[in-house]
Amino acid sequence: MGNEQLEELRKQLDEVNDQLFELITKRAELAQEVGRVKAAQGLNRFDPVRERKMLDALAAKNEGPFETSTIQHIFKEIFKASLELQEDDHSKAMLV
Amino acid sequence: MGNEQLEELRKQLDEVNDQLFELITKRAELAQEVGRVKAAQGLNRFDPVRERKMLDALAAKNEGPFETSTIQHIFKEIFKASLELQEDDHSKAMLV
Repeated sequence: MGNEQLEELRKQLDEVNDQLFELITKRAELAQEVGRVKAAQGLNRFDPVRERKMLDALAAKNEGPFETSTIQHIFKEIFKASLELQEDDHSKAMLV
Repeated sequence: MGNEQLEELRKQLDEVNDQLFELITKRAELAQEVGRVKAAQGLNRFDPVRERKMLDALAAKNEGPFETSTIQHIFKEIFKASLELQEDDHSKAMLV
């Protein structure tokens, strides 16, 4: 009976993993698009004010169970990866 | 016109951030539940085989734009935070 409960919870976790994966991928595509628009306008890709606003918005929403610092750490990893993606695109564009 | 495009993309990014936040929070709650069921059964909270399976499933799905190593890195951070949450619950339970 405990094992059935564990299996059911794991099934739910797998579904959440899939949804998270889809959203992280969608976010990466949007960030690439932002990078292209910014490049076309000659704007800097890294915008610390915008990043701070996004982190503050998350802090305002969070009621646990994760600590706000944990949520922000995970998002900072996503932001960093997005910025690297934009930089890769930029390097490729420079080679053309 | 470029600025409108940027604003629209940022609005979409904010929506994706909100959805990611909701899912990460849902995942944290599920992980806590798993921790409780495992504790009741005397099972070890850290299960490297299960974690490897989840990472492999993500690798199988990924077609970019993020590198598979990037996706796995982000998920490893989420797994680590979930495990820490389960350990906090366990420590609290031991104090009762």
